[in-house]
Amino acid sequence: MLTKKELKEYCDDARENYLPHISIDCVVFGFHEGLLKVLLLKVANEDEWYLPGGFLFKKEPIEMAADRILKERTGLDEIFLQQFHVFGDPDRSKQHFEMYNDMLPNDENWFVNRFLTIGYYALVDFCDVNPAPDVFSATCSWCDLNDLPKLKLDHGLILKTALDTLRLQLNYQPIGYNLMQKEFTMPELQKLYETILDKKLDRRNFQRRMLGFGILNKSEKLRKGGAHKAPYLYSFDLENYQAALTEGFKGGW
Amino acid sequence: MLTKKELKEYCDDARENYLPHISIDCVVFGFHEGLLKVLLLKVANEDEWYLPGGFLFKKEPIEMAADRILKERTGLDEIFLQQFHVFGDPDRSKQHFEMYNDMLPNDENWFVNRFLTIGYYALVDFCDVNPAPDVFSATCSWCDLNDLPKLKLDHGLILKTALDTLRLQLNYQPIGYNLMQKEFTMPELQKLYETILDKKLDRRNFQRRMLGFGILNKSEKLRKGGAHKAPYLYSFDLENYQAALTEGFKGGW
Repeated sequence: MLTKKELKEYCDDARENYLPHISIDCVVFGFHEGLLKVLLLKVANEDEWYLPGGFLFKKEPIEMAADRILKERTGLDEIFLQQFHVFGDPDRSKQHFEMYNDMLPNDENWFVNRFLTIGYYALVDFCDVNPAPDVFSATCSWCDLNDLPKLKLDHGLILKTALDTLRLQLNYQPIGYNLMQKEFTMPELQKLYETILDKKLDRRNFQRRMLGFGILNKSEKLRKGGAHKAPYLYSFDLENYQAALTEGFKGGW
Repeated sequence: MLTKKELKEYCDDARENYLPHISIDCVVFGFHEGLLKVLLLKVANEDEWYLPGGFLFKKEPIEMAADRILKERTGLDEIFLQQFHVFGDPDRSKQHFEMYNDMLPNDENWFVNRFLTIGYYALVDFCDVNPAPDVFSATCSWCDLNDLPKLKLDHGLILKTALDTLRLQLNYQPIGYNLMQKEFTMPELQKLYETILDKKLDRRNFQRRMLGFGILNKSEKLRKGGAHKAPYLYSFDLENYQAALTEGFKGGW
């Protein structure tokens, strides 16, 4: 929690520089070897965590704002963020309002305002990035999706909506280019889907469906050294992958 | 275009009642017997058309605002609107700015502000609704998607993004409940998909895939009276349809 002096400085600066009533929150999912996590921040001596978020400069394009905010708050750079939903409940930031309400008069207090927040999400390999907390936070950590801490404001709803969107996206868009090695086996790719969906998939159906999308190249090489029969190696066909990102999967309508 | 007096009254009222910097625009697609149209407004003696849009009251939930704005501007009521994207280019409403810039000082002129707009879309049977222009517009009409007039601001981009979203949605969610008769034939349903996608589909693949989703009940009755072999009648299985709306199609992952 900010001191009165810090709050006043922050609010003066915010009114000067940011668009009122609009914020951005980022849901960054991290995948690695069968684990799915989400990146959260926490202030020292508080129990509740929150998503990395912030405000738009008055003349800043929103996609640039999302990138900047994620970088400022977590150190993560060059992450592909996708806009997914605006959260506009008039009481959604009541908790902020109550936290700072008695410290500054309403017309000076940025946090008494209603904020609509634009949600962005991303999926990264959490071993490829090094999150670091910003000046407002004590902790910036990957938290287990199956054992989430208590979240501030409506950040639980934002997180759940992002996860639903990601899972739905598996049905119509490719995923995994920035999460898999250049060459991977079908069971490795299946593991990614199973981890995101949090359920087991049938091996044969997965392979048949995935090959039907036409986004994979099969290598002549086999993965060697395992205890089982050496599996085939695949890589993404980038041209078809890219086309499917914009148009949905072939074998759609 | 508003007179100076009308503009002043509108701006005074807007500053008093609306959230600044945020607007809503609605893309209503109309389908009927193989035609896909979009609902547009036009001011008398102007060439350019625009999407029905407006502003949020200071304490209004955004979904309610979208419903209200569509009703106020077009007369359409109880339409299921889906949020699909926020458009946030800092210069997107420059045309509005230029139109009214010299009529009022900047601090009194609502339209000099930057507005992010939240896009909503809907798909209706255009024979079921009776659009009517509001006080600001002279015309409120269904326009042919293949022969669109010139659109104001970035409304062409908003419309294109809505159409892309609708087409992508066909790959992972059911569609048609409010567009088909209670009982319909497979060719009738296929025509809906073909019209939205603007391409011919293979009859057998369409039927196989559609039945695979498990959202249709096959009737014992046949459609009689046509020149060809009487086709089977189907209806939507509402429970499975609803489940697929929230979770995506079965036969997904």
